[in-house]
Amino acid sequence: MGSSVWGRCLLSGTLAARDSNQQPSDYEDLGGLSPPQRNWKGIAIALLVILVVCSLITMSVIILTPGKNPSGKQRNLVCQHSFTNLVLLDAEVLYRNYDGNVIRFNFVTNETDVLVKNTTFESFHVAKYSVSPDLKYVLFAYNVKQVSPPSLLFHREVWELNPPEVQDAVLQFADWGVQGQQLIYIFENNIYYRSDVRSNSLRLTSSGKEEIVFNGIADWLYEEEILKSHKAHWWSPDGEMLAFLLINDTLVPNMALPQFTGATYPKGKSYPYPKAGQPNPIVRLFVVNLYGPTHTQELMLPDSLKLREHYVVMVKWISNTHTAVRWLNRTQNVSILTVCDATVGVCVKKYEETSELWLSKQEQEPIFTRDSSTFFLTVPVKQGGQGEFHHIAMVTKQPRNDQARVQLTSGNWEVTRVLAYDESDQLLYFLSTEGSPQKRHLHRSVSTLGLSPPRCLTCTLSSERGTFYDATMSPDTQHVILKSRGMSLFIHPSTFRYIHYQSRLLHCNERQDISLIYRVKCQSIFRCVLTLTVLSCSDESPGGQSVSDEFSLDWDSVLVSAHDVIVARMDGRGSGYRGQRVLQDIHPHLGHLEVQDHITALHMLKLKYIDRTRIGVYGKGYGGYIALMMLKSTDRMISCAAAQSPIVDWKLYDSFFAERYLGMPSNNDNRYQLSSVLPISKGLQDMKLLLIHGTADAKVHFQHSAELIKHLIHLGANYTMQMYPDEGHYLSERSQQHLSQALVGFFQECLHPCVSALSNEEDEDE
Amino acid sequence: MGSSVWGRCLLSGTLAARDSNQQPSDYEDLGGLSPPQRNWKGIAIALLVILVVCSLITMSVIILTPGKNPSGKQRNLVCQHSFTNLVLLDAEVLYRNYDGNVIRFNFVTNETDVLVKNTTFESFHVAKYSVSPDLKYVLFAYNVKQVSPPSLLFHREVWELNPPEVQDAVLQFADWGVQGQQLIYIFENNIYYRSDVRSNSLRLTSSGKEEIVFNGIADWLYEEEILKSHKAHWWSPDGEMLAFLLINDTLVPNMALPQFTGATYPKGKSYPYPKAGQPNPIVRLFVVNLYGPTHTQELMLPDSLKLREHYVVMVKWISNTHTAVRWLNRTQNVSILTVCDATVGVCVKKYEETSELWLSKQEQEPIFTRDSSTFFLTVPVKQGGQGEFHHIAMVTKQPRNDQARVQLTSGNWEVTRVLAYDESDQLLYFLSTEGSPQKRHLHRSVSTLGLSPPRCLTCTLSSERGTFYDATMSPDTQHVILKSRGMSLFIHPSTFRYIHYQSRLLHCNERQDISLIYRVKCQSIFRCVLTLTVLSCSDESPGGQSVSDEFSLDWDSVLVSAHDVIVARMDGRGSGYRGQRVLQDIHPHLGHLEVQDHITALHMLKLKYIDRTRIGVYGKGYGGYIALMMLKSTDRMISCAAAQSPIVDWKLYDSFFAERYLGMPSNNDNRYQLSSVLPISKGLQDMKLLLIHGTADAKVHFQHSAELIKHLIHLGANYTMQMYPDEGHYLSERSQQHLSQALVGFFQECLHPCVSALSNEEDEDE
Repeated sequence: MGSSVWGRCLLSGTLAARDSNQQPSDYEDLGGLSPPQRNWKGIAIALLVILVVCSLITMSVIILTPGKNPSGKQRNLVCQHSFTNLVLLDAEVLYRNYDGNVIRFNFVTNETDVLVKNTTFESFHVAKYSVSPDLKYVLFAYNVKQVSPPSLLFHREVWELNPPEVQDAVLQFADWGVQGQQLIYIFENNIYYRSDVRSNSLRLTSSGKEEIVFNGIADWLYEEEILKSHKAHWWSPDGEMLAFLLINDTLVPNMALPQFTGATYPKGKSYPYPKAGQPNPIVRLFVVNLYGPTHTQELMLPDSLKLREHYVVMVKWISNTHTAVRWLNRTQNVSILTVCDATVGVCVKKYEETSELWLSKQEQEPIFTRDSSTFFLTVPVKQGGQGEFHHIAMVTKQPRNDQARVQLTSGNWEVTRVLAYDESDQLLYFLSTEGSPQKRHLHRSVSTLGLSPPRCLTCTLSSERGTFYDATMSPDTQHVILKSRGMSLFIHPSTFRYIHYQSRLLHCNERQDISLIYRVKCQSIFRCVLTLTVLSCSDESPGGQSVSDEFSLDWDSVLVSAHDVIVARMDGRGSGYRGQRVLQDIHPHLGHLEVQDHITALHMLKLKYIDRTRIGVYGKGYGGYIALMMLKSTDRMISCAAAQSPIVDWKLYDSFFAERYLGMPSNNDNRYQLSSVLPISKGLQDMKLLLIHGTADAKVHFQHSAELIKHLIHLGANYTMQMYPDEGHYLSERSQQHLSQALVGFFQECLHPCVSALSNEEDEDE
Repeated sequence: MGSSVWGRCLLSGTLAARDSNQQPSDYEDLGGLSPPQRNWKGIAIALLVILVVCSLITMSVIILTPGKNPSGKQRNLVCQHSFTNLVLLDAEVLYRNYDGNVIRFNFVTNETDVLVKNTTFESFHVAKYSVSPDLKYVLFAYNVKQVSPPSLLFHREVWELNPPEVQDAVLQFADWGVQGQQLIYIFENNIYYRSDVRSNSLRLTSSGKEEIVFNGIADWLYEEEILKSHKAHWWSPDGEMLAFLLINDTLVPNMALPQFTGATYPKGKSYPYPKAGQPNPIVRLFVVNLYGPTHTQELMLPDSLKLREHYVVMVKWISNTHTAVRWLNRTQNVSILTVCDATVGVCVKKYEETSELWLSKQEQEPIFTRDSSTFFLTVPVKQGGQGEFHHIAMVTKQPRNDQARVQLTSGNWEVTRVLAYDESDQLLYFLSTEGSPQKRHLHRSVSTLGLSPPRCLTCTLSSERGTFYDATMSPDTQHVILKSRGMSLFIHPSTFRYIHYQSRLLHCNERQDISLIYRVKCQSIFRCVLTLTVLSCSDESPGGQSVSDEFSLDWDSVLVSAHDVIVARMDGRGSGYRGQRVLQDIHPHLGHLEVQDHITALHMLKLKYIDRTRIGVYGKGYGGYIALMMLKSTDRMISCAAAQSPIVDWKLYDSFFAERYLGMPSNNDNRYQLSSVLPISKGLQDMKLLLIHGTADAKVHFQHSAELIKHLIHLGANYTMQMYPDEGHYLSERSQQHLSQALVGFFQECLHPCVSALSNEEDEDE
């Protein structure tokens, strides 16, 4: 360990990186082992995705101790070659290092322990692990392929974690609690609890019914759209209470997912998926008391939502007995933040947000002071004539239950996340876009000073470390782990081409810009053509961002570096981090102004750089929708288009997403129809269209591509297809590699880019 | 009407022609209206297929009266411009003419009646019709899209044919009987009967259960592989008895067919489909007595098959009380022809066939004399050192129940069908390949003369009328309808390119050979490339034929005529009509010797004509399998391959087909594994592969392509796909057009054929 040392930069599995970011399981999240999360996702696929996630955290990580004095001097700085599953405690970090050992490192005493040896991982086929709060046990999800339950392992002593009286049960979830050896696991949609590894299991719920009633885990809608996690339960800090959602999908229509391979007679699955305007899951929030006689208490939603359909979008314990809960109506324009007394179930409204259009950032967790009298959260605030931007508000309890709201930040930039509040020094830590919407820096502000300018803590770090940070604070707010996701890692373009074949290790050789907006890398400008990568290869929906300093490396980088193709990414109206006006301008339709902005940008580019007969477009999910809408709106402008898992008709997409922008489908307005890709005109006949879709895509059903293809056949329009049998929205690593090759091949052949003498030579070297 | 007059030759819908030939419903078959034959086939598709079938019969049709004197002089010759649904009675033909009227034409008296006016068809949306035996009523299947029942219509008087006490029932089948106004219809797998249009319905069976127990109609296996018809019942000549199959699929595993389009939550279907080695349907044959008190009698199978799994492959009434039945064991190497007394159910063995490998032509109907003492059928007969060929045997009853078998024909050619026996003159009419396996001519032979050389009746017709005939005899054997399917219609190649777009009418301009084996049409031989069209675009399995004088016009004709590509079709070992030795040589595997022969032929061609770097291959179904096996067996020989609905693994294909060649799958032999496409090697990486498949293909499940694609992804091999959502093995007309365009585009782009100056000019003219 040394300060300010840059290790060798290792990049692996980066092709799937953006994809994995969309996964509910994030690398900094140690909690939640859920081996066969959903049966239909395929166990093998789950395993691969997890591997990708594990191999992701290979950037630079810095532990800063901001210290009591606000000088910002860094006390410790760790640069590891590669580690995963990083957990920050007050004075320690737990992580799995490059050798595969799980390490506890105390950065105050500088002591290092090996908690779990790499050989233990090898003897089992461990897909995921979790260390108990008392650091005495480790929970393994292993043999996930064979659908075996997770095991407890300690000093070669192994228990299998099985529901009582059930052999070879398929667990849906298993993890430690927050104290000692508390264990929770979920099986057949019911929650089971053990106070320690040797105690008997206690069944906490009994209403669970497969694919109908869910206790403590999310149904598809809550997992994919609302909580962004399979986990739907929350421990109180002392581990004495557990809050959990009961999600009832009885009325939600089931969508069928076919199965084509793996058996002589493959059987499909179906699962509740509320499409726009269809019955939604009914959600209730409970708290179960684990010490003493078990008692389950429902937390009552605010009166104003009692007769209306609603979602629970955020749950966070703020003390051992109280939890903050945010409730959102189905239309998503009224949200109520309450604090609930878990012992009696009463919830008191603390903050209400309303909007004429829709509310954003509803998942954010407010930061409470220890006595719960004050909390901080970001809210949209008008900034002169520039519309609303998200800034930090401090809300304080006043006499007679009134609240006072003080604005702590302002300006035409956004606070993206409030991290922590250091109560003793009244210091607030947060990430923001101050300076540029492309950047994310860590800031600190003194709460009592109100609108005093915040101080940027990461701006002073060497710019080589990047300009796009993510951060995790230690519980005592005295340390922070900084993760640089920025543009500081530069790869020689000649190495790009290897990534599609085999190499999992790329060495840093040379500085080279890639895929920045309008940034052009080409030897002879007039021999170049443009592939416009709509919204990147990501799934970004309104509020997302394609152009940022965040590092990314994908198949399109190959086009840029080896085939003299310009790749452009654009954030037009409907994109995030540039204020509410930019975001909400797309109202009342989808696919109109976003597309207009892309076309305008293309025209600007056309004038400057590109061969107008060779323009391509690519997008996935919502991006695939935008790509198709661009075809619909232009005439022979685009000659090559690739749409992956495209949304074709919003009526076939999920309620939470579609209704946010288009409301409930009704016969009186035609917003759904106007926002639909179909019918698409005959203009398609002069271009090449590649469709990409996994047949078991549970998010954007294969139905979308099928309806589009039927229409294309009807028109007599050409298309080709890459389909991935029995794969979901997030392709397996192998399939993603296959697709990357196919996409490069498609655009290369379709655009006929000029091949420079250099790259010819390099091709021969291979 | 005039003699020896050739009308204008009209060709329409010919692209789908070969496909439609595979359909159970044939144009000469008036019987059997089965509007929503199988739900999952899609009503709309059914309608389109029927239209295609209707528009098929546009070739020349000749009514010959061979006359009592064996001079072969033709008495009447009709050449209609276009007609469909032709039925030949003793002195009359019924048909629907080009104007849409249903006509009765008496060619003895030369009188013409209009039975049904075309306006009647227009006022309903008639998909199919059938005239009652007494010519007083017509049965319409109309509004098939809306799944309404067929109607009776006469003089504007309309009855809807509904099962008793059921409103808006979905009929599975409806047709007239053989006498007066007898009506039969099938609903919920049970048979209903009316003695005339005004009488009450009588329910004949009650065991019917949707997709489990079938009465009088076929399950998938019987429809597609065994009976080649949805109909599984047979009228006695006097209409007093009805024989029907009871097919019990209780033990047959169900295969799921997904549905992707047409609803917000599309639901798939499943249906019994026995794959190789899986439980087969259990079949029983019954006869129900319709006059007097209804009585149902089971016909008992021969003792030797009683404890063995078996099929009923042929049922034919030979008198008002007796029916001929052929039973085949599951292994398909023992078949027993019996004559059953329908009044008591006893079946007596008349002929037994056995083979060391498998039996072919088991569907053929023997021709019995009126007293049932003698019958004619084709059997394999050894021809010196050249192996066995199918020839006509006359089997006569001898004292003590013995039979004497006399061979009536011989030679190294085959009798393809015995048509009729004229008892008074002891004349036998049959079709054969005498002269060339590519031809089919009508022959007559005098049965009593034994091995006297048969006389060819159609060889003397002008060769312009073709050399490939099909024939239907009138019941009194005094007239025959000849259908010329031969090569006599020649189309100018420049017109080919239009057929994919709009034209349903092509005029005959000029004589031009197309797609004959090794026949080359190219302006400059060295600028040409070869597309090898494996087994044509048809689905031909072992015993089929790709190279014949039968006329065909398909997408590959466009390549030949407009893009200077050579198309070759080859019949190697395993092909039919050239004797049993050629056919059965492929034993014990599939896909080895067939492929070897294709490769050998290609090598011969390569030496002579073609650019060895530009060879393509196409096949559908079994042909798709051969195409893939060629890729597997060669190294960089083929640069472009298109496989439509390919069979990839015989274990996933139906029992009747797969077990015929490979037996029951067992652990002891690896015939299935050796015959499988998978695993396929890395050689795929240097070529282009196009896969084509309908997702609701009930014959070759999409599963085959899916398993192949998964393997390709695993290998990192490229492919592109044309998939047809919710379409079956036989594509809709619109999709077939789309595919034709796609195939021409694929081979054109992949082979980069030389474009002649001529065709360039023509392109610009369009």
